[in-house]
Amino acid sequence: MAATTETVAILGGTGQQGSGLARRFARAGVRVIVGSRDPDRARATVGGWGAMPGPIDVASYAQAAASVTLVLLAVPFGSIDDLLAELRSSWKPGTIVIDVTVPVTFAGGKMAMLEVAEGSASEHVRARLSPEVGLAAAFKTIPAHLLGDGDTPLDCDEFVCGDTDEARARAAELVTLLPGLRAVDAGPLSRARSIEHLTALAIAINRRHKIHDARFRIVGL
Amino acid sequence: MAATTETVAILGGTGQQGSGLARRFARAGVRVIVGSRDPDRARATVGGWGAMPGPIDVASYAQAAASVTLVLLAVPFGSIDDLLAELRSSWKPGTIVIDVTVPVTFAGGKMAMLEVAEGSASEHVRARLSPEVGLAAAFKTIPAHLLGDGDTPLDCDEFVCGDTDEARARAAELVTLLPGLRAVDAGPLSRARSIEHLTALAIAINRRHKIHDARFRIVGL
Repeated sequence: MAATTETVAILGGTGQQGSGLARRFARAGVRVIVGSRDPDRARATVGGWGAMPGPIDVASYAQAAASVTLVLLAVPFGSIDDLLAELRSSWKPGTIVIDVTVPVTFAGGKMAMLEVAEGSASEHVRARLSPEVGLAAAFKTIPAHLLGDGDTPLDCDEFVCGDTDEARARAAELVTLLPGLRAVDAGPLSRARSIEHLTALAIAINRRHKIHDARFRIVGL
Repeated sequence: MAATTETVAILGGTGQQGSGLARRFARAGVRVIVGSRDPDRARATVGGWGAMPGPIDVASYAQAAASVTLVLLAVPFGSIDDLLAELRSSWKPGTIVIDVTVPVTFAGGKMAMLEVAEGSASEHVRARLSPEVGLAAAFKTIPAHLLGDGDTPLDCDEFVCGDTDEARARAAELVTLLPGLRAVDAGPLSRARSIEHLTALAIAINRRHKIHDARFRIVGL
């Protein structure tokens, strides 16, 4: 079963979204490498997560990226440019990067989408990523708060898009490894813009209805 | 019960989306006035819908707008400017307009969102609508194809936003009159942009998965 052999590196794996994904994947039997700017601090953070069914390794960003062919990009949107510049020559042949970032800002307590010249965070990543690395978008619409709450079933759909069939397929497989998630293929990478707007809408609904975990299910599929 | 006293005018009520809404509302006991550029042709169209539980009246755009205080704007996005210019002095005091349009184009068989300078179709409408008329957005994400298929339950959530509490509340009440729909409040009118992206995503999912009726349900609410 893929779940026991897959290894995924999560760059930014100690952030709210990254750490939630790291722990959910570890519990699902996926081998996880947390990539961090500060591996020593990350090791202390991961140690605090308690016992996990599988090992969670910690490495620098460059080491994590260079050690596997499936890499989740879970750093804040504002850190993407520097990180991708740093990793330019780190990628293994055949690597697929899965971008989970969303360009929202909470300046002054008000949530807003950042204007991204390329149209979406994922297209912004594409413009800065080595052409030989495949790119997909996924895990953008699951509330980070929910990811970190291991007891609540995810119980929703997760939207995948990407620039090749292989990138989309590997992202969809990874989505499916987390219990309670269904992967919904939305097509080419340019769909990331609409997916990122789903996240903005979910945040708005959370605030308006005083809930925390609004997420989506497609009816009719 | 509100359902038996509410009257709604649907401008563009013979189009695919407008006619689906007109028939669903009529079946729910709402009195419907179909507003059309060509009332004679519209009367023939409405006559072809067969027996309805309540009367469906037909009027010109201006007559329809002037006769009620709840008006659905269901014309194609490209017709909005001319229509709103024509109706500038038609509105009754206290009118709420509910914009159901989505700025998508299918040029060359490829679906894309139109770039709207104001950010969304609803904000485009706001910029052209008399300031004393309230504006909400709703019914943007229900597939037109499904609306017209009276036998299939809608069974989904419908997203509402608007520029006043009253506009949002009246739009939400109207949503709730259709069986199988739950109204989800997304806040101010600026959220229309994200709601319109949901529609684009649903169309993309329909094409990718060879289905027709992809729509949304919020989990966690």
